[in-house]
Amino acid sequence: MSSLSVPPPQCLLQPFVVPHRLLLGPGPSNVPARIVTAACQPMLGHLHPETIEIMDQIKSGIQYAFQTQNCMTLAVSGPGHAAMECAIFNSVEPGDSVLIAVNGIWGERAAEIAQRIGAKVNTIVTSAGRYFTNSEIEQALAKYKPVLFFLTHGESSTGVVHPIDGIGELCHKYGSLFLVDSVAALGGSPIYMDKQAIDILYTGSQKVLNAPPGTAPISFSERACHKIFSRKTKPVSFFLDLNWLASYWGCDGKPARIYHHTGPVTALYSLREGLEKSWKRHKDVAEYFHTGLEKMGLKLFVEEKKARLPTVTTVVAPPGYDWKEITRFIMKNHNIEISGGLGPSVGMVLRVGLMGCNSNKDHVDMILEALSDALKHCHKSKV
Amino acid sequence: MSSLSVPPPQCLLQPFVVPHRLLLGPGPSNVPARIVTAACQPMLGHLHPETIEIMDQIKSGIQYAFQTQNCMTLAVSGPGHAAMECAIFNSVEPGDSVLIAVNGIWGERAAEIAQRIGAKVNTIVTSAGRYFTNSEIEQALAKYKPVLFFLTHGESSTGVVHPIDGIGELCHKYGSLFLVDSVAALGGSPIYMDKQAIDILYTGSQKVLNAPPGTAPISFSERACHKIFSRKTKPVSFFLDLNWLASYWGCDGKPARIYHHTGPVTALYSLREGLEKSWKRHKDVAEYFHTGLEKMGLKLFVEEKKARLPTVTTVVAPPGYDWKEITRFIMKNHNIEISGGLGPSVGMVLRVGLMGCNSNKDHVDMILEALSDALKHCHKSKV
Repeated sequence: MSSLSVPPPQCLLQPFVVPHRLLLGPGPSNVPARIVTAACQPMLGHLHPETIEIMDQIKSGIQYAFQTQNCMTLAVSGPGHAAMECAIFNSVEPGDSVLIAVNGIWGERAAEIAQRIGAKVNTIVTSAGRYFTNSEIEQALAKYKPVLFFLTHGESSTGVVHPIDGIGELCHKYGSLFLVDSVAALGGSPIYMDKQAIDILYTGSQKVLNAPPGTAPISFSERACHKIFSRKTKPVSFFLDLNWLASYWGCDGKPARIYHHTGPVTALYSLREGLEKSWKRHKDVAEYFHTGLEKMGLKLFVEEKKARLPTVTTVVAPPGYDWKEITRFIMKNHNIEISGGLGPSVGMVLRVGLMGCNSNKDHVDMILEALSDALKHCHKSKV
Repeated sequence: MSSLSVPPPQCLLQPFVVPHRLLLGPGPSNVPARIVTAACQPMLGHLHPETIEIMDQIKSGIQYAFQTQNCMTLAVSGPGHAAMECAIFNSVEPGDSVLIAVNGIWGERAAEIAQRIGAKVNTIVTSAGRYFTNSEIEQALAKYKPVLFFLTHGESSTGVVHPIDGIGELCHKYGSLFLVDSVAALGGSPIYMDKQAIDILYTGSQKVLNAPPGTAPISFSERACHKIFSRKTKPVSFFLDLNWLASYWGCDGKPARIYHHTGPVTALYSLREGLEKSWKRHKDVAEYFHTGLEKMGLKLFVEEKKARLPTVTTVVAPPGYDWKEITRFIMKNHNIEISGGLGPSVGMVLRVGLMGCNSNKDHVDMILEALSDALKHCHKSKV
């Protein structure tokens, strides 16, 4: 007689079928066959010489994509949120003052993470669709003297790309580290970690890089490392402790790798296109899309052209329509995912992601046609 | 002229070749073709109905593997270390007293994690290769009255499988939650979460389950949830906060899923063999291996037969040999990974993992032959 009280689930004895879809939401994006193939390579031990060589190659790839010479460059074994916590957990001690720029959901989350570890959190806030001027930022830096300033490069909830120039220098003038979240923008919108004096920069694997979700590239400047390695308390997370990550990724200059945890490999082989080509392609395709939208009579949520994020476009939700009916219609009839708003932009926008391999004019034509079809067939209330 | 100061790395322009190896170390284990194929299925949005159905199926699979009816059952988007932090971060508040059983490296790590979040950590310690009696555990529970007791089911650093019966009841008698780490044992050695009154149980994907590393199944009893959802402070990690994870995994009884983070899907399709068959196979194969080792004149590190972990075998490092030369010889000449000790067992043992699809008698014959070959060819000092 079986000693098992829970029987094997019938659902797991059925074949496993996943539909093909064009993923034009704010991420994850589709994974091209070449990258899927990389993930099918045989499993290796996490400390084999070949694995270490692959990690070193990934590190070079991240240095290129981030435009940085930082030795302290690696991929966190988790999603973008783990990288966000890795950045904040390591660089901030309880009682430290931090300043967070909130112009969408990512600033709100960063503020919550810093609060949980006992930081004194100050914020500057602007409305969805807007960004901050350097002088607004300088005023706040002068007032709060934070150890860290957090800014979102590509605010995917509102479709805003934030200007970066000059902010790093302002941070350093006031003794602050400059932390930038570029999860939704990196690879699709220019950023230069070293030239722009960014101290900590991270992104996710599943957006422009077109890799499966589950790894998050991150890099730390010497200035950031100095603060991190002279802290008085241990970071709350062992899993995300940079002391351990640095040994595991060989960023401490020592030849031997120390076992920390079992890292997921094979995910980051997507950086073979030149960065500038990729930036230009994302910009061109986004502009082509924006023109098409305006021709259809739709309105862009971000008015100022240069503030429009090339990877995630926010369209003002068509007046009189239920935005949920539109996204459902397009999924059902065109097999394409697009998304509604998130956080401060819920109900206000539709969001369309054109990231990595998904950023091309054919896809724009498809989504424009799908939107036009939806506006014809979805219910319109009398306004 | 290019604005890039960091050129594209040449190493990423080369073909990407990974060797095939038989991974008989303490994990990761080889991933069978069927599971690789699952990971090649098309990417879906992380909140698509099909993704939610897959998550529900994964949940059923974990409930079966853990032998639990717990609704609060899910997979953490990270390695086993993230699950360890998820368990401790959620169930322990600063100032709480916890009790950790240390008979190898995993107890040490759990103690360190609890210390980092400000818990009062007490330990019971025994030497590598040993386990605790229920009366030793009861004495410590009575003395420290911890909110949580941590025990390692399969101590992969020493090759010990810990008896579980009766300990859950003892924990509850003294008002403590019972947390069990079964990363290296689950699926290969019997465990019954509900029957054995375990409150929190987790494992890793890359051991007996033969999936790629990067997800970690975890389950919480009602008693654990009661403590967690009545805590006064927020857990330090947003990423691992069970309130958020529960909504994302639909464990809160509400139909709508709340976006928390982008989870990695498609990893856990490996639970198609009956549990009891799997337990018996791991036991039979391990015993076959142990007999073969003794016939060769090698000594098992764990003397008591019933305390030998069927998934990871520890062999006393052959006297007179350099254990590193042996592992290198076997990798070079037989293309098989085995491993030395870890933490308290470094230098004392060789570790051989026979997990999931790697647990079969052909592999035992291969590794016995490889060991015998190594003992012939490696240098022996005159003892």
